[in-house]
Amino acid sequence: MYVYADNAATTAMSQTAIDAMLPYFNKIYGNPSSLHSVGQEAKEALDAARASVAKCLGCEPREITFTSGGSEADNQAIRSAAIFGARKGKKHIISTAFEHHAVLHTLQRLEKEGYEVTYLDVKEGHNITAQQVRDAIRPDTCLVTVMYANNEIGSVLPIAEIGAVCKQAGVLFHTDAVQAVGHLHINVKEQNIDMLSLSGHKFHGPKGVGALYARRGIPLTNLIDGGAQERGKRAGTENIAGVSGMAAAMVDACDHIDQNMPRVAAMRDRLIEGLSQIPHSALNGDAVNRLPGNVSFCFEGIEGEALLLLLDMHGVCASSGSACTSGSLDPSHVLLAIGRVHDVAHGSLRLSLCEYNTDEEVDHILKVVPEVVAYLRNMSPVWRDLQTGKREYIL
Amino acid sequence: MYVYADNAATTAMSQTAIDAMLPYFNKIYGNPSSLHSVGQEAKEALDAARASVAKCLGCEPREITFTSGGSEADNQAIRSAAIFGARKGKKHIISTAFEHHAVLHTLQRLEKEGYEVTYLDVKEGHNITAQQVRDAIRPDTCLVTVMYANNEIGSVLPIAEIGAVCKQAGVLFHTDAVQAVGHLHINVKEQNIDMLSLSGHKFHGPKGVGALYARRGIPLTNLIDGGAQERGKRAGTENIAGVSGMAAAMVDACDHIDQNMPRVAAMRDRLIEGLSQIPHSALNGDAVNRLPGNVSFCFEGIEGEALLLLLDMHGVCASSGSACTSGSLDPSHVLLAIGRVHDVAHGSLRLSLCEYNTDEEVDHILKVVPEVVAYLRNMSPVWRDLQTGKREYIL
Repeated sequence: MYVYADNAATTAMSQTAIDAMLPYFNKIYGNPSSLHSVGQEAKEALDAARASVAKCLGCEPREITFTSGGSEADNQAIRSAAIFGARKGKKHIISTAFEHHAVLHTLQRLEKEGYEVTYLDVKEGHNITAQQVRDAIRPDTCLVTVMYANNEIGSVLPIAEIGAVCKQAGVLFHTDAVQAVGHLHINVKEQNIDMLSLSGHKFHGPKGVGALYARRGIPLTNLIDGGAQERGKRAGTENIAGVSGMAAAMVDACDHIDQNMPRVAAMRDRLIEGLSQIPHSALNGDAVNRLPGNVSFCFEGIEGEALLLLLDMHGVCASSGSACTSGSLDPSHVLLAIGRVHDVAHGSLRLSLCEYNTDEEVDHILKVVPEVVAYLRNMSPVWRDLQTGKREYIL
Repeated sequence: MYVYADNAATTAMSQTAIDAMLPYFNKIYGNPSSLHSVGQEAKEALDAARASVAKCLGCEPREITFTSGGSEADNQAIRSAAIFGARKGKKHIISTAFEHHAVLHTLQRLEKEGYEVTYLDVKEGHNITAQQVRDAIRPDTCLVTVMYANNEIGSVLPIAEIGAVCKQAGVLFHTDAVQAVGHLHINVKEQNIDMLSLSGHKFHGPKGVGALYARRGIPLTNLIDGGAQERGKRAGTENIAGVSGMAAAMVDACDHIDQNMPRVAAMRDRLIEGLSQIPHSALNGDAVNRLPGNVSFCFEGIEGEALLLLLDMHGVCASSGSACTSGSLDPSHVLLAIGRVHDVAHGSLRLSLCEYNTDEEVDHILKVVPEVVAYLRNMSPVWRDLQTGKREYIL
């Protein structure tokens, strides 16, 4: 048995999404900017995809800008809000310490350009509160950018409450919803979200395509200058196949949240329950407000990379931290942000499920993970030191 | 018969490219940043695609950065060179008046930021010379960015000569080769090209994917901050299916240039010969150094949009100017740059062929275009004024 439990990193495309893409490769292959019928057929597909994405979010089609993915959408949203704010002399931004790097690195660049960023603390409950946002807002705050749900530890943030706080304060509110779209019910108008980023490949759509929702009236700044595509806000021939595949996957996911997610959450809960039995382990992330598919643990006395490789050999495909930061030897900034010490943060495991996973796969994971953790601890000098009292247990 | 003669706007994907993409949708669907085997299989595909693209250009794989298309690659190349130049106090850039908007609009933004840009005149021969570049280089020139071949009028620029001039002067040389890759033999090392942009969908690859070649040692600036993908220079989960499809299409195109392009050029020449018979018409672009598939004409006394719509009704899918600027009522900046007056520039037609076109299709175009031009002129008050001497012919 080989279990793919890394759906937060990326998902397999659904047949629905693949089928939605195929016509645009060599049948309706025109450039939507072309006046002729081949081009106009492509334009219709683009419009239809935009309408579908907008409907899923509860916004107008014109409020959707297609991008090459979630990272580009995050960059464009934050940079646009920052430039818009600076015009009014507002150069303070509020975010959290456990955002995705697409947000954090954009903010760090803005800090170098003279912006000031408040990173809200996420140690308490591995989450933030709307009150923290309210307390951080200043007269010169131009943007609150907090993720909808954390990609590593699964905490779901109180987005509607934060939206209400931002609306009341007259501050723009952006949310990186890459992990939430298709998994949680979202309505940008009801939740007072001004800007939202999403990525196709996190809900069984294609890689290399995403979208930015920006409420009408918010002036976007181009990251990519050139042709007049996307109302002049994002140059480059539109990826018709990609946006069509993403839109089909998004409609499919959003329409089936109530069918799929309770079952996914039940598998998640069984995994959390089972893995909690491993001694000196700790669940990461908000235990209550949590993505349906996210299971995140730290195990004391082991090293995450070895854990992943052994799990892979035993037919479990998992992650330690996020895929975007692998290749780095530093422990996850998310785990450090929730207060895990370096050694413990290194011994982390993320399992992320989707509706394709089965109860049998959960059984397999529950069998393999404790065995592999025990095996690694058996070889670990750190674990020996913990057992003999040379070191003290933290977890 | 319906003839697709708008291959400069976009192409139908080849079956080779489609087949190369399909495995990465729901079989090898991992995130290449993941450590597990599913991720590593995707990583291998990414490496293979990068090696293929590099081989086609005559560079090293590490010199290739995958992007979401040609526009993004142009933006990143120019912005990177500008920032690199500014660090050494060099803020002068040389380009041409007939670049693609992805280049022109990026340059215009840099002008607002304090850079100075010299736009070389392209009236003489509808092209530039290496001598023009040499004459324009100043001690504070940080970048020469000239396109490899023009997308509207087909002129192929003297890239190797310009490369030699830039190398001698120690100035970075970028070329937007979106229209050239897969159609002309390119070797970045032999031609002294420091940076080159390309786009998958111009040679039967997928839309939404492109690449930037940047010679080792040239520091790239991110347009998109975030994860460590593309050696930290372009964040976002890699579009494995897209880059695999693009690489397959590129290898296929580059390997068959000598078989395909002479036949395409023969069709082009027959069209140019035939359409030149239309009175008061003029070929746009360099008559000698010309893309194999490009036919571009101005016809006096007609309006390009009506021409396109009627041609579409008569089974010929063509373009007036570039697809990226349609929706605009202004005449093409390219046609204005080569000296066409407004009225004449409005009456333009671009036919762009590829190896999928046939001699029968050329016959069809040669039958339809003169008829449609005559029909439109018959209805045109401008044409009546020209015939009665109230206006003077220009062409």
